[in-house]
Amino acid sequence: MAVSVRIQGMLESSSWIRRMFEAGNALRAAHGAEKVCDFSLGNPDVEPPPEFQRALLEVVSAPIPRKHGYMPNAGYPEVRALVAEQVGREQGAALSGDHIVMSCGASGALNACLKAILDPGDEVIASVPCFMEYASYVDNHGGKLLFAPCRDGFDLDVAGIEGRIGPRTAAVIINSPNNPTGRIYPESTLRELADMLLRAGRRTGRAIYLLSDEPYRKLAYEGAVVPAVMRLYPHSLVATSYSKELSLPGERIGFAAVNPAADDARRLVDGIILCTRILGYVNAPALMQRVVARLQGKAVDVEIYRKKRDLFCAALSSMGYELSKPQGAFYIFPKAPKGDDLALARALQEELILVVPGRGFNYPGYFRIAYCVDTPVIERSFAGFERVARKLRAG
Amino acid sequence: MAVSVRIQGMLESSSWIRRMFEAGNALRAAHGAEKVCDFSLGNPDVEPPPEFQRALLEVVSAPIPRKHGYMPNAGYPEVRALVAEQVGREQGAALSGDHIVMSCGASGALNACLKAILDPGDEVIASVPCFMEYASYVDNHGGKLLFAPCRDGFDLDVAGIEGRIGPRTAAVIINSPNNPTGRIYPESTLRELADMLLRAGRRTGRAIYLLSDEPYRKLAYEGAVVPAVMRLYPHSLVATSYSKELSLPGERIGFAAVNPAADDARRLVDGIILCTRILGYVNAPALMQRVVARLQGKAVDVEIYRKKRDLFCAALSSMGYELSKPQGAFYIFPKAPKGDDLALARALQEELILVVPGRGFNYPGYFRIAYCVDTPVIERSFAGFERVARKLRAG
Repeated sequence: MAVSVRIQGMLESSSWIRRMFEAGNALRAAHGAEKVCDFSLGNPDVEPPPEFQRALLEVVSAPIPRKHGYMPNAGYPEVRALVAEQVGREQGAALSGDHIVMSCGASGALNACLKAILDPGDEVIASVPCFMEYASYVDNHGGKLLFAPCRDGFDLDVAGIEGRIGPRTAAVIINSPNNPTGRIYPESTLRELADMLLRAGRRTGRAIYLLSDEPYRKLAYEGAVVPAVMRLYPHSLVATSYSKELSLPGERIGFAAVNPAADDARRLVDGIILCTRILGYVNAPALMQRVVARLQGKAVDVEIYRKKRDLFCAALSSMGYELSKPQGAFYIFPKAPKGDDLALARALQEELILVVPGRGFNYPGYFRIAYCVDTPVIERSFAGFERVARKLRAG
Repeated sequence: MAVSVRIQGMLESSSWIRRMFEAGNALRAAHGAEKVCDFSLGNPDVEPPPEFQRALLEVVSAPIPRKHGYMPNAGYPEVRALVAEQVGREQGAALSGDHIVMSCGASGALNACLKAILDPGDEVIASVPCFMEYASYVDNHGGKLLFAPCRDGFDLDVAGIEGRIGPRTAAVIINSPNNPTGRIYPESTLRELADMLLRAGRRTGRAIYLLSDEPYRKLAYEGAVVPAVMRLYPHSLVATSYSKELSLPGERIGFAAVNPAADDARRLVDGIILCTRILGYVNAPALMQRVVARLQGKAVDVEIYRKKRDLFCAALSSMGYELSKPQGAFYIFPKAPKGDDLALARALQEELILVVPGRGFNYPGYFRIAYCVDTPVIERSFAGFERVARKLRAG
């Protein structure tokens, strides 16, 4: 066999997002790309802010010796210091550059953090619906991802998470604003989570890490502020990237930040740096480290996304789709008519519309729309969504 | 404990290269950076060739929509096609873009390839002395690295490799030009290796992959050509980067190439792409993919390194150090006087000279000099090398 048994199995069961991507390619080939309304991928359509191009040109033109050479695995000290200042402001915590490890995107940060804390057989808990790649990231390092339910309206169900905690629990992953729901977890819920984790950690005899995956932090609407985990819970880590807030997902630039209040935070940082090296990331891309350092606190114009959200939500609601209006990110997660997300995704495909069924996030009965696409594409899709709503309600 | 048991163990036994790096920082702090001669790191001092800066500015200025967005996990199809042409020429194999997976450096390519082929308990064989990170890369995916001896003069010992092969052998890793020896394996040796692997694969009932780590391919001196593995052995993969040939190690850009003649090559490529995604690399950095695509076949001026090699080798030989003149890469791997690499490294540190003891490559008794540093630093170190040679021979 050309690949290992486990990878063979994964190739056969490839992810729903990937399946929709392939279905999309088939539709585009058959009908022409301009006919297909593809809401299956979280690839920002908004260009990076103008400051980005200026910063990029500045760094490209600056006479810096060995500009593209190795630096310490954690990143340039001056970049880490600037990132720490910004994270410190956002999290209300006293971070220095020593608490930051620059990474190849949020996924690189998550993998380095998980490798640093997991021994084989350890468990990590995530709340559904969630980005299913978490299961691979945990499995990469010998851990097991357990799924906790959520409350109505997609808030965290703290009691549900508590019910999954056992002696092997190493971490809980949260993602706010959430992919796929767009939910921002309120501070009251996070406080409840923090209290529960402190109690549970005393019970199990090990600190349970709270790993906060925050790439959508700056895509929050109507002035919503994403509550800071570091102020609420000592054993917390933030993994994030500039992919969404600066529209740079292809450049693989992000970081992990460790709460200075965590037990033995210094050793944890050293572990994450070691894992960045041995996982083969080695370091975050050099040029982009220097570019994002100049853009701390900057983000794309979120009003662009807010308008798309409002347009899409209003149209879907008027057609009878049930949905919670997302507070951030660029996803809507409506209920599938009659709760059948596969029938819905198939019926939409016949209309040349691509979405991801909720089971792709371990949450059947719903579906994800990524609305980071041109407004005319959104508008063009409405007739199809309408026909499908009528058809499935009648059928 | 802040980190997992296994990472705690690794932090305590951190690599020799890392230890030398820390020793270097201590020496620089105590004596001033300009006093320390640091030959411990393979960080190219030669700037990228002038074509690089032109290509970079071109790509940065080009009006390409979603230039920094996601692309397929394997990389841009047009970039993969250009890379395939170049690899096809070098390897004498009929590659298309479908056989290339762009990666975050050679280490990213190695990890994606190893994850694709290894089941827990599988074995990989490497010849000593070797880059010890291979052991971590194999361990990341549940495999075990076995070490084979080498012949005098650091050529591969094919019988030694054969002696390590068993039913769990998944792959043999080679690295030519070699880090740390600078050896280029001759075609006759590779042919012998290929024949042995074919025989062994028939015996064990599974194709044994030959994974060729080639980041120094274009750093070969006096017209030496690095023999192509793909022409000699069907189940071969190349993992490489532009880090050394274009002096871009900080940018993390490289690729994996699969021999079209490998059994079920298509599935193997699909597995590597899947692993690029689930390991959290997601894709090679977008901007640098487009830049290196324009620089296929280009390299830094190797004469610069060749002159440093000649200068260093002549001086060391005249002092009585025993060495094989390296044919490529930018390392020299001399014998430590009286075979004690630790005593040698310590004595050199007293002279403010940093090298890596051979045990850092699982080959005690020798030491590695990375001569990718300014020529005046090389010249300044000679007096120290001379004193240490005399002292250790006398001692």
